Amino acid sequence: MDRERLREDVERNAEFGRIEAEEGRGRTVLTGTEANREAREYLVERLEDAGLEVRIDAVGNVAGRWTPDGADPDAAPVAAGSHLDSVPEGGIFDGPLGVYAALEAVRAMQDAGVEPSRPVAVVSFTEEEGQRFASGLLGSSVAVGERSVEEALALEADDGEGGTVTLEAALESIGFRGEGLLDASELDAWLELHVEQSERLESAGVPMGVVTSITGITHCEAVVRGEADHAGATPMVDRTDALAAASEFVLDVEQAANEVVAAESDTAVGTLGSLDVRPNATNVVPGVVEMGVDVRDVDRDAMQEIVSQSRESLARLERERGVETEFRRPFDLEPTPMSDRVRGAAHGAGEAAGIETMDLHSGAAHDTMHVASVTDAGLLFAPSRDGISHNPKEWTDWDDCAAATRVLAGALADLADGR
Amino acid sequence: MDRERLREDVERNAEFGRIEAEEGRGRTVLTGTEANREAREYLVERLEDAGLEVRIDAVGNVAGRWTPDGADPDAAPVAAGSHLDSVPEGGIFDGPLGVYAALEAVRAMQDAGVEPSRPVAVVSFTEEEGQRFASGLLGSSVAVGERSVEEALALEADDGEGGTVTLEAALESIGFRGEGLLDASELDAWLELHVEQSERLESAGVPMGVVTSITGITHCEAVVRGEADHAGATPMVDRTDALAAASEFVLDVEQAANEVVAAESDTAVGTLGSLDVRPNATNVVPGVVEMGVDVRDVDRDAMQEIVSQSRESLARLERERGVETEFRRPFDLEPTPMSDRVRGAAHGAGEAAGIETMDLHSGAAHDTMHVASVTDAGLLFAPSRDGISHNPKEWTDWDDCAAATRVLAGALADLADGR
Repeated sequence: MDRERLREDVERNAEFGRIEAEEGRGRTVLTGTEANREAREYLVERLEDAGLEVRIDAVGNVAGRWTPDGADPDAAPVAAGSHLDSVPEGGIFDGPLGVYAALEAVRAMQDAGVEPSRPVAVVSFTEEEGQRFASGLLGSSVAVGERSVEEALALEADDGEGGTVTLEAALESIGFRGEGLLDASELDAWLELHVEQSERLESAGVPMGVVTSITGITHCEAVVRGEADHAGATPMVDRTDALAAASEFVLDVEQAANEVVAAESDTAVGTLGSLDVRPNATNVVPGVVEMGVDVRDVDRDAMQEIVSQSRESLARLERERGVETEFRRPFDLEPTPMSDRVRGAAHGAGEAAGIETMDLHSGAAHDTMHVASVTDAGLLFAPSRDGISHNPKEWTDWDDCAAATRVLAGALADLADGR
Repeated sequence: MDRERLREDVERNAEFGRIEAEEGRGRTVLTGTEANREAREYLVERLEDAGLEVRIDAVGNVAGRWTPDGADPDAAPVAAGSHLDSVPEGGIFDGPLGVYAALEAVRAMQDAGVEPSRPVAVVSFTEEEGQRFASGLLGSSVAVGERSVEEALALEADDGEGGTVTLEAALESIGFRGEGLLDASELDAWLELHVEQSERLESAGVPMGVVTSITGITHCEAVVRGEADHAGATPMVDRTDALAAASEFVLDVEQAANEVVAAESDTAVGTLGSLDVRPNATNVVPGVVEMGVDVRDVDRDAMQEIVSQSRESLARLERERGVETEFRRPFDLEPTPMSDRVRGAAHGAGEAAGIETMDLHSGAAHDTMHVASVTDAGLLFAPSRDGISHNPKEWTDWDDCAAATRVLAGALADLADGR
C-alpha cells in the first residue's frame, strides 16, 4: 500500500469543516452541512478515480464497488469502511481513517495485481456520531433493517435558522439523497478500521488491535426527589436533601463498577456522566436531582450486576434518607461478539505482513455493532496517542495508519478470496 | 388592634401582582414593576389615611411618620416595618405582614390614646428579596450607608424588552424615585415583624418568636477538575472523575454541618445547593464540577469549622483522587445579635398582653440585619404553617397575625416612650 496516498486522502478530508485548534487538527462535519457535502464529494471522486462503481443509497450511505477481473460480479461482496461525519470540534482520524484505509486497501490490491473472487466494497455510513439527526449509528441502523428508510428520512434536526429540517431535505440539499438501500445482509463479510480511543495498543507497543467483542451499553436514568427548602431556615435534621442522597448514588455506582472490575470482568465500566439539580441555587436545599448512568461491558452479567447494585442503592436511599426515587432503563444494547472468521483473517494478515496484532475489546459503539447482526463482521483498531479522541488532539502516527491499512488489505484479500 | 383592618390591608396588598396558584395565594412583585407601583401607592394611601407624614427617599424606601401630640418632633423616632416586594411566585405574608402590622400598631396606639414621647415611623424598604437589581436587602443597605445612593441608583436589571434599566429609571417610571435618604442611624430603635419561614413556633405552639440573633452567612464556591473521558473507552482505573470526587465533597459538607450541630451549635447549617457538571453527558466521564456552598450560624466559630472541614475535604480529594480543586469565599456576613433593649421590650409586651413569646434565631437574612449595624434593632417572628415560604402555600393564621401585631404595638409603645 501507498502510505503517502493514504495520508493525502486523510489530510485532504481534514480540510472539510476544519476548525482552528490550539493544539492538533480539528474539524466539525455534521450530516447535511456544506462540510459534509465537500467530504462526500471528495470521497466519490476518489472512489471513481480508483475505478469503483459508486452508489448513494436513500439515506446517503456511500458505497464504491470494485469488481476485479475474473471475480463473480454477482457474488456477495466483502466490504470495509467507516464514516466521514465528526463530533463538533472532533479529530481528523475518527471515521475517515477507516473509509480511506478501505479505499487504499483496494488500490493496493489493484496495484499488486491481487484479484479476489468476490467484489470488494468501500463504504461510508451516514451520521455515525449522532450529532444532528439521531443518537448515533444512523446509516448502519438502516443498512441492517433496524430502522426503516422512511423513519430515517423523517428524522428532524435544527436547521440553524430557528426551524427544523428533515434528514431527507438535508441530504437533498447536499445532493446525497440517493436511491435504494445499502443492504448489509447482502455482504459476505465486513471489516472496519477505527482509531482505538484508548491507550491499550500504545501501552503495549502494538500497532494493530483486533476487537474480540464490542461492549454492550445500557443507559439508565435515575431521579431522586427530596424537599426544596430554605438553606438558612431549615435545620439539618429537618432536611430531605436530594443532592446529598444523589451523591451517595454517584459513589455507589462507581463502587459497583469497581467491584465488578475486581471480581468478574475487568472490561466493565459504570459512569455517572450527567447530573442536574433543581432548583440549583446556593441558598436552597436541593429538591430534585436527575442523573444519567452509562454501563458497559462485553459481559452481559457484569453489566446486569452494576445495574442491580445501582437500583439497590436507590432503594437504600429511600429507606435511609426518606427520598423518593425513580429508575428507568431507556436504552439497552447487548454486547456484540466479532466474527471468528473475520478476526482470524485479520490476525493472519498481520502475521503475513510481520505486523504484531493483539486482541482487545471495544468500549465504544461503532457501525460494526449493527453490521455484525446481519453478517460476519470485524473491527480493527489503530493506536490513539494518549487515548484521546473527539478532540483536535486525536492523533495516530502515519506509520501506524499504514501498518493498519496493510493488515486491513491482507484481511480483505483473504476474505474476498473465499478461503 | 383591629384584626380585620390588618387583614384587609394584607389582603388588598395581595391583589397586586397576584398569580393563579393551585394551592394558596401567590404574588409576584418585583421592584419597579406595575405591581410594585400599585402596592406602593396603596401603602402611601393607607399611611396618609392614618395621618402619617409620608416621605419617599432617593432609592424608593417609604417612611410614614406619626408624631403623637405631646411628642418631641425632633426626637429620634422609633420605627418598624419590612418590605413589599416578593420573590417570583411568592406568598402574601413575607414582607407585607411586617409593613401593615407596623401601620396597624400605630393605628392601635392612636385608637387607644397611647401617646409616646417619640415619633413612630412605618417603613417599607426597597427590594429586600433581591430578585431584580441586587442580591438582596437593597433599600436597607443604602439606609445604613453600606451602599451609596449613586451606586444603588446605577444598578441595572433586565427591562423585559431585551435591554437593561437602571434602578433610578425603574423607580422614576413608577413615581417612587424620591429625594434624600432614610437614614437608619437616626432611628432610636427598629423592630421588624416577619413570618418565621421555619416550623419552630408551630411545633412549640407559641404565637410569637423573639429573635436572639440573625445568622451569619458565608457563600463558598468550590471547583473540582478531573479529566473528561469517553465513558466506554476509559477503564475504571484510568479515570479522574470530577463528579465522583465532587460527590464525596457534597457528603463531607453535610457531615461537617451535622457534626457541628451535634457538638457545638445546633443552629448551624451547611448546604450544597448548586452543582454544575461539565460536559454533563451520560456517555462522558465528568471533567469539571462547580459547586455553591451556603454555611450559616449565629456562632461564628461554628461557621468557621464547617468551612475548614470543607476545605480539608478538597485537600483530601486532591491527594486521594488526583483531582485539582479551587475554593473561594466570595460572600461573608457576620452573625448579627439583636438588641437586648428591643428584645426585652418585645418579651415585656408579650407578657403584658398575655401572649406567649419564645427566643429563637433567624436562619434567613432580613433588612434588620443591616439596621442592627447602626441602631438598637429587633426582629419578631409570626408562625409559618409547615415552615413554607417563598411559595403561594405560605400561610400565617389571621389570629397569629393579630397576636404578633399586639406584641409589636406594645413593644413600639414601650420603646417610643423612652422607658
